Amino acid sequence: MSQAIKLDVNNMMSDIIGARGISWSAVEEITEDLQKAHNAVQGNRGKGMQGWMELPYNQDEILNDIEKSAARIRERFDNFVVLGIGGSALGPAAVHQALCHLHYNELPPEKRGGPRLYIEDNIDPERMAALLDVIDVEKTCFNVITKSGGTAETMSQYLIVLDALKKAVGDKYKEHIIATTSKTKGFLIEIAKREGYETFYIPDGVGGRFSELCPVGLLPAAVCGIDIRGLVAGARAMDERCLTDDISDNPALLEAALMYLTMKWGANISVMMPYSDSLKLMSDWYAQLWAESLGKNTTLTGERVNVGQTPVKTLGVTDQHSQLQLYTEGPYDKVVTFLKVENFRKTTNIPHGVDDIPTIAFLGGKTHNQLIEAERQGTEYALYRAGRMSQTITLDEVNADTIGQLLYFFEMVTAYTGQLLNIDAFNQPGVEESKVASYAVMGFDSEKHSMKREEMKSKPASKDIYIL
Amino acid sequence: MSQAIKLDVNNMMSDIIGARGISWSAVEEITEDLQKAHNAVQGNRGKGMQGWMELPYNQDEILNDIEKSAARIRERFDNFVVLGIGGSALGPAAVHQALCHLHYNELPPEKRGGPRLYIEDNIDPERMAALLDVIDVEKTCFNVITKSGGTAETMSQYLIVLDALKKAVGDKYKEHIIATTSKTKGFLIEIAKREGYETFYIPDGVGGRFSELCPVGLLPAAVCGIDIRGLVAGARAMDERCLTDDISDNPALLEAALMYLTMKWGANISVMMPYSDSLKLMSDWYAQLWAESLGKNTTLTGERVNVGQTPVKTLGVTDQHSQLQLYTEGPYDKVVTFLKVENFRKTTNIPHGVDDIPTIAFLGGKTHNQLIEAERQGTEYALYRAGRMSQTITLDEVNADTIGQLLYFFEMVTAYTGQLLNIDAFNQPGVEESKVASYAVMGFDSEKHSMKREEMKSKPASKDIYIL
Repeated sequence: MSQAIKLDVNNMMSDIIGARGISWSAVEEITEDLQKAHNAVQGNRGKGMQGWMELPYNQDEILNDIEKSAARIRERFDNFVVLGIGGSALGPAAVHQALCHLHYNELPPEKRGGPRLYIEDNIDPERMAALLDVIDVEKTCFNVITKSGGTAETMSQYLIVLDALKKAVGDKYKEHIIATTSKTKGFLIEIAKREGYETFYIPDGVGGRFSELCPVGLLPAAVCGIDIRGLVAGARAMDERCLTDDISDNPALLEAALMYLTMKWGANISVMMPYSDSLKLMSDWYAQLWAESLGKNTTLTGERVNVGQTPVKTLGVTDQHSQLQLYTEGPYDKVVTFLKVENFRKTTNIPHGVDDIPTIAFLGGKTHNQLIEAERQGTEYALYRAGRMSQTITLDEVNADTIGQLLYFFEMVTAYTGQLLNIDAFNQPGVEESKVASYAVMGFDSEKHSMKREEMKSKPASKDIYIL
Repeated sequence: MSQAIKLDVNNMMSDIIGARGISWSAVEEITEDLQKAHNAVQGNRGKGMQGWMELPYNQDEILNDIEKSAARIRERFDNFVVLGIGGSALGPAAVHQALCHLHYNELPPEKRGGPRLYIEDNIDPERMAALLDVIDVEKTCFNVITKSGGTAETMSQYLIVLDALKKAVGDKYKEHIIATTSKTKGFLIEIAKREGYETFYIPDGVGGRFSELCPVGLLPAAVCGIDIRGLVAGARAMDERCLTDDISDNPALLEAALMYLTMKWGANISVMMPYSDSLKLMSDWYAQLWAESLGKNTTLTGERVNVGQTPVKTLGVTDQHSQLQLYTEGPYDKVVTFLKVENFRKTTNIPHGVDDIPTIAFLGGKTHNQLIEAERQGTEYALYRAGRMSQTITLDEVNADTIGQLLYFFEMVTAYTGQLLNIDAFNQPGVEESKVASYAVMGFDSEKHSMKREEMKSKPASKDIYIL
């Protein structure tokens, strides 16, 4: 059993960093709102789009099925390709980066243990061509992930892969495709049934960005040899920490309170800064969760607003040499969240070798483990000196359990913050416009799309003087 | 010769998108500022830290040397590892991603042509261990890039590599190391001279984030078979477009004017959104350039300010499924820059295969090339409908020439915008604090660091109630 991940918000608070921080009294002032938010989130557990809160508890049978399927895939295939976009890609990528070798695909098969993993979350024509240059489809399993089956990106990829498989292996193409989709509705389940594809289900109450801990994320993880029971156990452990409405015990509720206050006070940017390459893609996963859940123009009670905080993906120490100048001297518009790893899975010693240049000689005999944490502390201190807010989430070690905790922690923070903002954190009405307009541009023949084409014509014409 | 890249700012302007856009009269109001900015930037060409403006013209001999060296490296080594951070890594990575195969390292040697490329811009201990798992140092050339030789991250990596090489190849380690550094000062040139390493020079007036078009970027590019003369020619072509102070002819000056106005009016976020996987890492390179150059707390005339715009890295269409909800419904705090590719280097056909589900059947017979551009237009339209600013930079094709144009374009925009903000776009005083604090934490023995340790003790003590 892993240690609980730790949230340290000292450098968010005015009694530590000064005037630009949050005072504890400001937190106490919203105590009632916090309790209401907590009750709303807990009260809706399992209802509507909060099915993700049941995933830590209701998957015993599914975990068995996934493990069996993963074992077969690991045995049979050289490559495992996820066709999915958004939540169907970001979670699998983040967990793979965290828990597999950092050059996983380049390892020889015996060291890798499982197939190479490719996560195809774009429709760039050069990228699809590049993928087909490096995989042999005869030895590849494709996991098509879309809840509705209506995702144009994923379904166009499916058509490409279907054709390639039929050409390569004939009728056996069915053995190369696994569908992860809604059990009850949508196009992919319809296709999967008539084709007889192996299928895993995305529960109705689990939206894309909350789906990593269901088969969307668990199958690719298991295929790569990740301990999926550990992931779920970690999520369960975090869920249990979030059962109380006492912010001195519930880390997600405390975090939601602080992030809500930062937003209220004008910090419209949330910087995620893991000091670990393994956690690099957690920032990408978080970016969708935070942006798509909280970026809304209507409250639950119908008021017009424009809320949301823009997530920024960075990597420590790398981005000290790219973003830190702005963070310490630029506008007071952001909060920085460090992800800290207490114990890395490797120790990298820095040998001696240059003895007459003090600043370099000094490094000899130290470790990269020491240096990366010293630099994190240096950055934290520089932000403190500049009166900027930061906070640190510490993972004792990066493993399935702590990653499960971390994922579920951010999901809970998001749900709570949605309540505090009085918005629906589980919908995404704002992406529809772009989808309809794209299909209209492509010439799709429907009344809706014809009307959109007409509407698009009424946009003022481009002017030549605005083009250089 | 490639076509000139094209800047289209229609969707920035109020006569196209409405009230939240920029009026042309607002641009005209700052005409004098623009001319002053133009004169200042052009007047300092080659002076101080504006040596990068000479790189399109003064490298004939260096290009020959780089090409010869690259040919030897391509012949002899299986791997080429860049040890560098910030500008020493982001440029090489962006250009490689743009101009090499998207799965370059996984290609068989005969298809790749050159060695595998690894860019090591972090000191994560697991990452260094992972690298050493997949490369054979006997067959690896290491390019140590740091202007000062004082970069702790890079020099600690150098010590690790030096030790590994000595163990693997004995005295021949010298043949495996190439230094790219200042010719006149710093520790790395000192080490390189006494060890006899092959060395390339970073001109004095070229700072890290403006260094991609000097040997910092050109050597790794040439090693991977990239046409470095094309890169430089593209930069030269853009420089020539920027010689006029007429914003109806100078795209960088027009762009600087608009970005300056967006900042003045409260858009503190600049979203870079390439619709092409090959341009994905251009966002990372741009993020350093924009953040570190413009994030400043003091003007050239000594006033205290806190300026800067936070760059956000995204990828189209992928991030439509992650960030677009926020961009269309959230705060009016950002400007979105699309990078559009007119002609991809591959065509990916979408075959037929599902004929009875209209929205999927419709995709059959189309191409990913059509779909990705339709989605870009759909997103542009959705932003327009929501009254949000966007702009589009179009590359006829992604090649060395257009990439050279694009890099130099953003450098010029940055220089102009720095002038408009009346700040020094070429320094980074704000990163010093973190560096000193890190070495203080590590226990470095100097008066400065002892004082910093004392100072750090005066920070208010952490409180247990702020840790969960």
